Amino acid sequence: MPDICDSNKLNHRFRGYYPVVIDVETAGFNANTDALLEIAVTLLKMNDDGILVLDKTVHFHIEPFEGANLEPEALAFNGIDPTNPLRGAVSEKEAFLEIFKTVKKGQKASDCHRSIIVAHNAAFDLSFVNKAIERNDLKRSPFHPFASFDTATLAGLSIGHTVLAKACKMAGIDFDNKEAHSALYDTERTAELFCHIVNRWKALGGWPLATPEQSAIENTDEKIES
Amino acid sequence: MPDICDSNKLNHRFRGYYPVVIDVETAGFNANTDALLEIAVTLLKMNDDGILVLDKTVHFHIEPFEGANLEPEALAFNGIDPTNPLRGAVSEKEAFLEIFKTVKKGQKASDCHRSIIVAHNAAFDLSFVNKAIERNDLKRSPFHPFASFDTATLAGLSIGHTVLAKACKMAGIDFDNKEAHSALYDTERTAELFCHIVNRWKALGGWPLATPEQSAIENTDEKIES
Repeated sequence: MPDICDSNKLNHRFRGYYPVVIDVETAGFNANTDALLEIAVTLLKMNDDGILVLDKTVHFHIEPFEGANLEPEALAFNGIDPTNPLRGAVSEKEAFLEIFKTVKKGQKASDCHRSIIVAHNAAFDLSFVNKAIERNDLKRSPFHPFASFDTATLAGLSIGHTVLAKACKMAGIDFDNKEAHSALYDTERTAELFCHIVNRWKALGGWPLATPEQSAIENTDEKIES
Repeated sequence: MPDICDSNKLNHRFRGYYPVVIDVETAGFNANTDALLEIAVTLLKMNDDGILVLDKTVHFHIEPFEGANLEPEALAFNGIDPTNPLRGAVSEKEAFLEIFKTVKKGQKASDCHRSIIVAHNAAFDLSFVNKAIERNDLKRSPFHPFASFDTATLAGLSIGHTVLAKACKMAGIDFDNKEAHSALYDTERTAELFCHIVNRWKALGGWPLATPEQSAIENTDEKIES
């Protein structure tokens, strides 16, 4: 008997995609040339009432890849000193292998079949993640290569504002500007904002879908495109 | 007397951003190396009831930039023959100058202060638009350089699916797979999907914002960040 579509289960909420919240801190805007310096990943889970909540977070300081460019303005902006031995930085490869392991474990436990990056202005984070994967020739990434869930888009829809700090405050989520621009802090605020908006859509009656044929179309076996 | 915040006005819906729906057809996935072949732009407007609707659309076939790469699989996928003289293709520069003019006119008419790209998996379209702007050394682009509104994200939230064709059908928007992957057709379906989701959020009671202090935070003059 196929598993009856239970709208309170995470694997039925985003067509089997497992949302993984990410924030990266970097030494510039260009993923091709500039160093990835810090990454934090927050997993999510859905409780029995179908409410999305934060699960665990993993976090790494990262050594700039060989030949990486370091933009002084970027380092001044995020306050990271890549040469500081106290960072406890690891290689990109070590960090990503650990992230893949953690994410795949969570994805499996949620019965999802693929992971999708959730980030604020997600194009930026996705570009640095994809470049690091390519640079290190990493195989079997759990992440969708080009689709992502962008919380700036969701905040624009639901709150009418796109800046993370403002959107959080307007959503009633504490946000301390002094702690901003650390990957760990920003990832968890982004995760709270994402959960807030998904849960609000459900509370407003937007989820589950209203009509049976809407979910019937969902289950037809059409070739999945972009 | 400052203009009293009227939630039915477009310039109050997304913090003064003017949403501009875009779709590009290209000769590959890499915005740095692969040709931009087609672009369509659909403007939006809000009627007196605060319902978002399509406005005008402009569309251009584009000549590959000098030295552009053309991936055979990409041309097979979108069916474009860059050498066909009947395309009526124009240069990137000519197309973008015309687009800037049209968008700036609409932005001004809506009392918005900046335009933001709306697209399906927006990171892709944004990367090709930004690269074309850079390549042609175009100044005073109306578009935000890194923020965008991604309809795949919005469809994931509101419909639980991220594929354009499926999300449109589930939203009750006609979608003919035989017409898909023409920039003109995809832009207008993406625009309809974006309007559907924004209007649904309003119909469910999500907009305007419920509490005065939420809009008070919105209007404080904090420095606008990422």
